[in-house]
Amino acid sequence: MKVILRKAIKLILSVARLLCLKKIINQFDKLATLIRSEWYSLDIAKTGNNVIFKSSFYLYGGDRISIGNNVSFGKNSVLTAWTSYNGQKMNPHITIGSDCRFGEYNHITSTNNITIGDGLLTGRWVTISDNSHGESDYSSLKTPPAEREMYSKGEIVIGKNVWIGDKATILAGVTIGDGVIVGANSVVTKDIPPYTIVGGIPAKVIKRITV
Amino acid sequence: MKVILRKAIKLILSVARLLCLKKIINQFDKLATLIRSEWYSLDIAKTGNNVIFKSSFYLYGGDRISIGNNVSFGKNSVLTAWTSYNGQKMNPHITIGSDCRFGEYNHITSTNNITIGDGLLTGRWVTISDNSHGESDYSSLKTPPAEREMYSKGEIVIGKNVWIGDKATILAGVTIGDGVIVGANSVVTKDIPPYTIVGGIPAKVIKRITV
Amino acid sequence: MKVILRKAIKLILSVARLLCLKKIINQFDKLATLIRSEWYSLDIAKTGNNVIFKSSFYLYGGDRISIGNNVSFGKNSVLTAWTSYNGQKMNPHITIGSDCRFGEYNHITSTNNITIGDGLLTGRWVTISDNSHGESDYSSLKTPPAEREMYSKGEIVIGKNVWIGDKATILAGVTIGDGVIVGANSVVTKDIPPYTIVGGIPAKVIKRITV
Repeated sequence: MKVILRKAIKLILSVARLLCLKKIINQFDKLATLIRSEWYSLDIAKTGNNVIFKSSFYLYGGDRISIGNNVSFGKNSVLTAWTSYNGQKMNPHITIGSDCRFGEYNHITSTNNITIGDGLLTGRWVTISDNSHGESDYSSLKTPPAEREMYSKGEIVIGKNVWIGDKATILAGVTIGDGVIVGANSVVTKDIPPYTIVGGIPAKVIKRITV
Repeated sequence: MKVILRKAIKLILSVARLLCLKKIINQFDKLATLIRSEWYSLDIAKTGNNVIFKSSFYLYGGDRISIGNNVSFGKNSVLTAWTSYNGQKMNPHITIGSDCRFGEYNHITSTNNITIGDGLLTGRWVTISDNSHGESDYSSLKTPPAEREMYSKGEIVIGKNVWIGDKATILAGVTIGDGVIVGANSVVTKDIPPYTIVGGIPAKVIKRITV
Repeated sequence: MKVILRKAIKLILSVARLLCLKKIINQFDKLATLIRSEWYSLDIAKTGNNVIFKSSFYLYGGDRISIGNNVSFGKNSVLTAWTSYNGQKMNPHITIGSDCRFGEYNHITSTNNITIGDGLLTGRWVTISDNSHGESDYSSLKTPPAEREMYSKGEIVIGKNVWIGDKATILAGVTIGDGVIVGANSVVTKDIPPYTIVGGIPAKVIKRITV
């Protein structure tokens, strides 16, 4: 029974292939991406040419966000600039350069300042967050984290041509130099000098590249 | 050609905005969340007031799960209590307190006991698992992991007002004290005293907060 | 108002349950998985019996991929073999044994060679990548990573009955022995002898199992 069903499915799919179902789906997908990209651009303060948002993108606070030319965000990515939280007022800015490619499931969130230079490439499940739920004093830790005041240890500055590996996390108050490679699964908690490769939790210099 | 298409799309989207398409979508989304939440609640032993399951939630073994008031699960989260695996019988319980907020893509899975206190906040891609595929003896490692007996090193107890960062993993047999902050990407393998900040693999105390 | 709405929803859902809505959805889901699996199999050089691709699977370069019997890929997984990148030609092969179970959101990508033995089990958000964007010399780091030549430090060989935990990353040029357990969130950068448990960034031997 199941075997016959599989054979029937295979036959129908083969016919669908002949009818160019894949190409048709691809064309629809391209059109959907075009519409989606225009839709989100309407909400963003400044977007350059050829800025692409793949499906299931989530945007908040676009009026605080500026994006250069030729930038793409992979599926299921999140880009949020929070101006208020539980009545607290914040003043966030996210500035993204040109020729940046964010991977799928990226999570970029600001209550302070995130500045990203040209030529960034990120893997999947990358977190870039300049904020956290509260400071680490005793009275804060006695309250539920979701009710703590939003706190930013400092702004994030990422240089040119940086590559951030899968599942890496960039935390508040760090400056990452030009040409840096952040290894997979690392957590960046301190400044990284240019042209270095870092890895681990917290991320440490593995290799320093010289001319 | 593409430029004209983009302009046409932009015009149509602007009109859609005027027609409040976003608000209408938001209302449908709220209704869908309400229906989804009631749907899953039907399968859960005890759910308090205002328990919200965002889209693409996956539930298994709800009759072993109890949830307090004002709890939300982010999109794509998984909550599973396994009573059997390959014929093996297990006796899991998951008890979640009130005012807990689970982030997106959380993965909470039990074959033993997971107890979570009030006021938890988690980031994205957090794993809380009290079980593993088999023990680490030689004969186990000779068989495919999926065929090994499920094994739990011990139950997980999470205190009040705990904050677990993006991509952190909480493993079996640990007790996490009140007010703990678990850093991003960490793996918790041992007990954590209250009011401490931990990070790394395995997670170690970074800071101990006193009054 | 909201209370009445919730009650109405609950009533409708209860009736839907009586009408076996869940069972009907399950049956549709099974059929969809069957169709999806045949659809992707058409593009893969060699697929054994009972190879299952769960929803939102992404495949590229299937003619370079060979899969054994009884293999499943969890939802949102990605399996890619890249034969060209920005005009650069590559010669990738991915060979997967039998009885392997890949978790959800797995990311397996090759420009060189990935060979996986029988009986693998992986968790969620696992990355297996034998390639990277460019070498780590100074002139490479001066160009945007997405424009660097694809580079593979070496092929990946994974033995039999290996278990890879949630969020672990396996990088290029490593051989993982039979019966290895890779801990959650680890990054494997060096060879791992058989029957060992490893963890951390970079992954180090935690325990060596003997007969």
